[in-house]
Amino acid sequence: MRIRSRPRNRTGSVTLVGAGPGDPELLTLKALRALQQADAVLYDALVSQEVLDLAPKGARRISVGKRAGRKSCRQDDINDLMVVLAKSGKRVVRLKSGDPAIFGRTGEEIARLQAEGIPISVVPGITAASAMAAALPASLTHRDHAQSVGLVTGHSRNGGLPQDVDWARIAEARATTIFYMGGQLAEQIARRLMAEGMPADTPVAAMANISRADQTCWRGTLAMLAANGNPLPDGPPVLIGVGGVFAESAGSAAAFSSCWPWPATRSACS
Amino acid sequence: MRIRSRPRNRTGSVTLVGAGPGDPELLTLKALRALQQADAVLYDALVSQEVLDLAPKGARRISVGKRAGRKSCRQDDINDLMVVLAKSGKRVVRLKSGDPAIFGRTGEEIARLQAEGIPISVVPGITAASAMAAALPASLTHRDHAQSVGLVTGHSRNGGLPQDVDWARIAEARATTIFYMGGQLAEQIARRLMAEGMPADTPVAAMANISRADQTCWRGTLAMLAANGNPLPDGPPVLIGVGGVFAESAGSAAAFSSCWPWPATRSACS
Repeated sequence: MRIRSRPRNRTGSVTLVGAGPGDPELLTLKALRALQQADAVLYDALVSQEVLDLAPKGARRISVGKRAGRKSCRQDDINDLMVVLAKSGKRVVRLKSGDPAIFGRTGEEIARLQAEGIPISVVPGITAASAMAAALPASLTHRDHAQSVGLVTGHSRNGGLPQDVDWARIAEARATTIFYMGGQLAEQIARRLMAEGMPADTPVAAMANISRADQTCWRGTLAMLAANGNPLPDGPPVLIGVGGVFAESAGSAAAFSSCWPWPATRSACS
Repeated sequence: MRIRSRPRNRTGSVTLVGAGPGDPELLTLKALRALQQADAVLYDALVSQEVLDLAPKGARRISVGKRAGRKSCRQDDINDLMVVLAKSGKRVVRLKSGDPAIFGRTGEEIARLQAEGIPISVVPGITAASAMAAALPASLTHRDHAQSVGLVTGHSRNGGLPQDVDWARIAEARATTIFYMGGQLAEQIARRLMAEGMPADTPVAAMANISRADQTCWRGTLAMLAANGNPLPDGPPVLIGVGGVFAESAGSAAAFSSCWPWPATRSACS
């Protein structure tokens, strides 16, 4: 319940909240509470409407989404807006898809807010890799397949393959690798990994809209990914998982019964 | 509310639930619901009492925890127990610390349950790396420091350093690496990374009991870790983060103001 009689000159604050993958049931209890107490919500393009609806009716909702290839707020403008709102006494929620600590430019926001002396807190969220594993279902680690998990950005700021990723390492590793926002470069990612020596039959799973009503998934191999590219070229971001844990036989005989074989398009998972 | 009149010959099920790092507020809404509907809860040693208390009073609570160096349930016995309970019509919750998909041997449990034809679902949880980042606060990725995040097991089954980890890769990478359950081998991990050429002044953060009342954290460098080893040798599991994002200057001027300098012992974070 919001307390309307609270004085206006109170100290504002910013809570960076992980919205999770989309299903409002995958919010944490702490995230829900922060949202319900918000005066203003700054949200990214990927945050689902159902999650946004949990903020109070009177709260300001401000889209600051950045989407590839479209005009969007500059990071500095987002930071400025949070500072102004917090300094005017507002309880600001900065709502980010997934987990704020993973590919969310959260470090820059924390730095600016701390430099301004604004009280901040961070509420972690379910990151897309965890949600994908639960949806399949599969484990991202398995003693027979992977002793580690790599979360890697699937594109660079200039639109090409990321520069700082050690492709040879990924190709050689007995590990699971998850490419975030990898859909636009799916074909290039697969070709690059095969060029570095990763076996063409390495299992791949790809999902979009994880945990949402329109959740979609595929499965196949690196070779199939290289041949078919992004199954949703104009669609939502695609998470691409590469590694033995994504094989049907990897600890889950029927793990992918709910996925259509690649390259079926826009097939809803059960 | 549990419906007591539900027929006893109903089909049982198993829900693998991520309990998150310990604070019950970091459960997802979906996890809370699954717990509240459970007839039986099989839980690991690291699951917090506060989370366990959310199951109905009448639910069976069965500890199946595995802790290093102590007698514990064999994985096969845990699987058998889930099968028997589910086949007797129970709604079984398999409650795992953190996220079930990350270092939880979930793949083996999914495989067995599916082979037995038991309906299963998985509810993802906040993994320790996300909770650590939120608590500091810090981001695990930063365009100046890390384009990827590696989640790596900090020990092998025989108690030594994990065999399948490519230490040279970790040492060279512009990446963030999080060692799970790495406390017992903290000194060895640091020495190995430095032997592979990782700079001695690489920032390190270590945390235990993340999100709990007795949360503890430290910060320092690889060299300090190598010199001091595990700050909690007989204590709870320690999460060790290595990389530039853990520097004070990495996007967060006051990020570690709530941490005591290494090797302070058992210092509670704010």
